[in-house]
This record gives sequence, C-alpha cells and structure tokens, in this order.
Amino acid sequence: MDSERTPHFRPTTQDFRWEGVAHQPYKQDGSAPFKDISRQVLFHEDDLAGELRYFEMDADGYSTLERHEHAHAVMILRGSGSCLVGDEVRAVRQFDLVSIPAWTWHQFRATAGEPLGFLCMVNVLRDRPQLPTQDDLAQLAANPAVARFLGEA
Amino acid sequence: MDSERTPHFRPTTQDFRWEGVAHQPYKQDGSAPFKDISRQVLFHEDDLAGELRYFEMDADGYSTLERHEHAHAVMILRGSGSCLVGDEVRAVRQFDLVSIPAWTWHQFRATAGEPLGFLCMVNVLRDRPQLPTQDDLAQLAANPAVARFLGEA
Repeated sequence: MDSERTPHFRPTTQDFRWEGVAHQPYKQDGSAPFKDISRQVLFHEDDLAGELRYFEMDADGYSTLERHEHAHAVMILRGSGSCLVGDEVRAVRQFDLVSIPAWTWHQFRATAGEPLGFLCMVNVLRDRPQLPTQDDLAQLAANPAVARFLGEA
Repeated sequence: MDSERTPHFRPTTQDFRWEGVAHQPYKQDGSAPFKDISRQVLFHEDDLAGELRYFEMDADGYSTLERHEHAHAVMILRGSGSCLVGDEVRAVRQFDLVSIPAWTWHQFRATAGEPLGFLCMVNVLRDRPQLPTQDDLAQLAANPAVARFLGEA
C-alpha cells in the first residue's frame, strides 16, 4: 500500500471488511499450523513506524502458535474466543486488550462457536516468528490449562 | 505505562473503558479548542514504535482542529459523526478507517446525537500539533462544506 495513495476515508463495506483493503485468506494444507484465518492490512504507511492489521478466524479456527522478538498490541474486535499468552489462557471478547511481549508464546482460538477477529499493532520493522519445537510443546503442555487450550489434553 | 508491568489481559469493563487504563478527560475552559473529549492510552510500550489511543467525544463534542508532521491512523470504534481531513468532510461510523497524512488539517465531531469514539495509532516519537491561525481558518472556510462542518456557515 503506497501511503501517497491511501484515501483519507475507507468505509467499512460489510462485516469487518473495508473499501480498498485486500482480504488475504491464509493458504492451508494438512500440515499448516493455523486454521481458517485471514489477514487484512488496515494501515501500512511510509510515515508510520507501526502497522495495524485485522486478523479473523472462522468458528473453530486458530492462529499459529508462535513467538518472536517483536511485541503485539491486540484489541479483540469481533466475537469471542480464547487466547494463550505465555502460560496464561483466558477467554476474550469484543474490545478486550491483549499485550504480547517479546519472546512470549501466543495463540488465538475461535472456541466460542463464532468468528473471532482482532486488531494487531506491530512495528513495521520486525523479526520473523518462531514455531515451537516438540520440546517447547511438551513444556507448554505441562501446564494443564495450556494443554486443554492446545487440544492436547 | 511500564511495558514490564502491562498485564497480558486487560478486559473491557464497561462501555469503552478498560481495566487498568486511565480515563483522561481533557480540561476545558471558555477558550478551549475542543469540547467534551477524553483520552485513554491503550498501548504505550517500550518495545513498540507505535502507540494506540482511544478518544471519545460526548454527543456534540469535538476534537481540536489541528495539523502536524506525524500521521494518524484512525478506526472509528463507537457511534457515528463527521470528520474533516484536508478539505474533505465525511460522515463516519463504527469501524470506518480514516488516514490523516502529515500536515493535514483534521477534526472529529460527534454530530449524530451520540458519542463518537475512535482508535488512533501514532508514532511514539512525534511532533506537537499546530493550531490554525485566523488566516488558516479563513482559507478552510472558503470551502462551503468545510465552513458548515466548522459551524461557521
């Protein structure tokens, strides 16, 4: 998106879609670490150091379980579901805030029978996510609440 | 706000307020260039180059008419109203996106008989706003739609 060309006004056109914003479903195959999730980049401008994206999962969908150096600042925008940050699992609903610090495992799951959508602010300059090793997963699942969240208990 | 201490989860507690987020009404006197507006800083962290704030006006309230070098990335979060960006005046409603580029006059007005609230992403490092001079105001009001928006026609 070229900031010179971003229109001043981009109305919402239907449920959580926007005029001039590309809807990007993530491709998935049998081995994909996510399910039924899409991304829309709402703001990515030359003169902004932060970027604002909207992610949405269908009911029963989930985001990738991952960690990275960069932080996430999240607001739930649609529906409800549950969320893992570090070793904390919490129910989340519209307008709740979630802070994901550096190097903290995190995942969102649309566990409430409805879509779960959230805004996510990140730095434009950021590192790539890491996926958990088998050891990482075993360590996470040692916590019963986290094991239940991950569907491994 | 110390990023070391921001809790992972800050639920919304009531209409557009959040646990652990200070509600900051702007003080106003007869000469204040804004009306009935409050600020809540949702995310301001050491490891984020952007900051996310929530501003809300009561019905008939308005934000300061101003411009500055830094850009604003806005999503309307509550209600509806109207907005000036440059010489464009538009009705805005929940979830609409508004891009305010560098050095562009802008103002939000809760003109729809209800509160108007919006998220605003900015760079943490940013310049201070400029207010319009009498000449600036005269130039803005030369556009009839802008004059109506400013209540000067």
